[in-house]
Amino acid sequence: MKLSEFELIEKVKGLFGKKEGRVELSVGDDAAVLRCGELYQMLTCDALTEGSHYLKRWKERVEGFYRKLGKKLINVNASDVASMGGEPKFSLITACFTKESSEEEAQEFFRGVKEAAEELGVSVVGGDTVKGKGELFDCFMVGESSEGYMVRSSARPGELVGITGTVGDARGGLEILLKGMEVNDYLVNRFLCPTARVREGREAVKLGVKCATDISDGLVFNLHTIAQSSKVAVEVESEKIPLSKELIEVFGKERALHFALYGGEDYELIITFPESLKGKIERIGFKVIGRVREGEGIFVDGKPISPKGFDHFKED
Amino acid sequence: MKLSEFELIEKVKGLFGKKEGRVELSVGDDAAVLRCGELYQMLTCDALTEGSHYLKRWKERVEGFYRKLGKKLINVNASDVASMGGEPKFSLITACFTKESSEEEAQEFFRGVKEAAEELGVSVVGGDTVKGKGELFDCFMVGESSEGYMVRSSARPGELVGITGTVGDARGGLEILLKGMEVNDYLVNRFLCPTARVREGREAVKLGVKCATDISDGLVFNLHTIAQSSKVAVEVESEKIPLSKELIEVFGKERALHFALYGGEDYELIITFPESLKGKIERIGFKVIGRVREGEGIFVDGKPISPKGFDHFKED
Repeated sequence: MKLSEFELIEKVKGLFGKKEGRVELSVGDDAAVLRCGELYQMLTCDALTEGSHYLKRWKERVEGFYRKLGKKLINVNASDVASMGGEPKFSLITACFTKESSEEEAQEFFRGVKEAAEELGVSVVGGDTVKGKGELFDCFMVGESSEGYMVRSSARPGELVGITGTVGDARGGLEILLKGMEVNDYLVNRFLCPTARVREGREAVKLGVKCATDISDGLVFNLHTIAQSSKVAVEVESEKIPLSKELIEVFGKERALHFALYGGEDYELIITFPESLKGKIERIGFKVIGRVREGEGIFVDGKPISPKGFDHFKED
Repeated sequence: MKLSEFELIEKVKGLFGKKEGRVELSVGDDAAVLRCGELYQMLTCDALTEGSHYLKRWKERVEGFYRKLGKKLINVNASDVASMGGEPKFSLITACFTKESSEEEAQEFFRGVKEAAEELGVSVVGGDTVKGKGELFDCFMVGESSEGYMVRSSARPGELVGITGTVGDARGGLEILLKGMEVNDYLVNRFLCPTARVREGREAVKLGVKCATDISDGLVFNLHTIAQSSKVAVEVESEKIPLSKELIEVFGKERALHFALYGGEDYELIITFPESLKGKIERIGFKVIGRVREGEGIFVDGKPISPKGFDHFKED
């Protein structure tokens, strides 16, 4: 299939929509949102597949590899909920194993799921195990918020852009695994064991922040989803983009910045917010990296920059 | 991996549980059940994989094959909700395609999802498309009921056993496809396009029926899950088991009965209910095939019979 994931989503998006009065938000953001009495419920699913998201041979180089995949699966989905301002609560797991999968790998995977779920306070309430031609781990996550939710489409000109953590690390970790470089535990773990920014998302929504997304497909790409859906332009100052010292040490400043802009799977949060909230937002742990203005597109240090994210369908 | 699906579920079940006060029911029934205000919410997921649930070459023999897979995916998950007495409401779809998948197949699949969702009144509110080594279609379904729910574990001695539709047809359809027999549209469609028994499940729960499951793994196997979890015995009269004329015509009475007892994927409902409800239950469309009594095990025409269901992990 030559279609990219995003093109395919565009094609099929028209097939579905919000039909039920209680569906506040359907296909097209990090999670769908339902009304359930006083609560907003966020529903999301995200899968990890052998070949696209990981290579089986990496387990020779990374201790507890399948445990980490289990933890990643939960955190990736919790991150979608976090980026809407919700608290991840309930989850179901579909695990597809192959003839080559071992019982130990399966058990390790579920151990990782359990650990991450406990850390986040998520109840794993069901799932399905199947056999197929390639390993695949899918997670459905239900999140909740009684304080509203954040979307990609509500950035307003004049707002500041805030980000959690450091970016590019996951892409650095991936590069190490792909190229067979010496393992740097910090970077590889940032790729294999991201941490969903649940606290930060919850505190932002409680402060009244309206616009957020997570960095699953690269900083520029995900800023682009905000800019496009909000019909605004976003300006970023490259020197303000938070980079880890490990990333710079291993890859040098220039590549580190490239990874930060175009690498995916950091699962940090990006928000936009009114300048009046700056102090409070910084105290939550966000760093200001830019500003929203009228217009369209993404600008880094004043230069327009094209969105180029991580796309599963275009890897080979 | 040598572990069967059921053994694996047993192994990992201990890892999870109901932690949240609002989780009424966790891993181990057809769906998990949450409390959400006045509502009970059912959460379930079930996947179809190439190699385990279908073979890609079947598309040469069945028109609209991927459309039917899409319809099946929705109905299989709606059936889990129906067997708890819920109404399927919201759904997310994960579709994993391979290099060999065509755009046409992908679009046909999503068309089938849409058709089935519309027929059932389900809103598809999100999903994920990924690339992997084998095709896999996963569905997450949220159902609801404000009238309580049914479980496998509440069959009581003295109750009658009721069933919807006819059984064994799906196994007949599978046999036709597996053996390259002349296609019988009715049987192949019963395998590829099962119909979730939502109305029957809803009406049963409204009548106060407490115990139900669906026939995903074979009549004997699924009766066994009721008997085991309810700590009762179930007696069935083979001549009362509803068989379609098509199944008998193509396979003869004896094999038809064998398919009915051990074949899977019929997605008909089994319930147990007090004799006083017999008239009302029959008017919904259930046929009485047996009775619950004290003891353990499944008895067909008085003979004990071992559970032997459809298990993805033991096929090859």
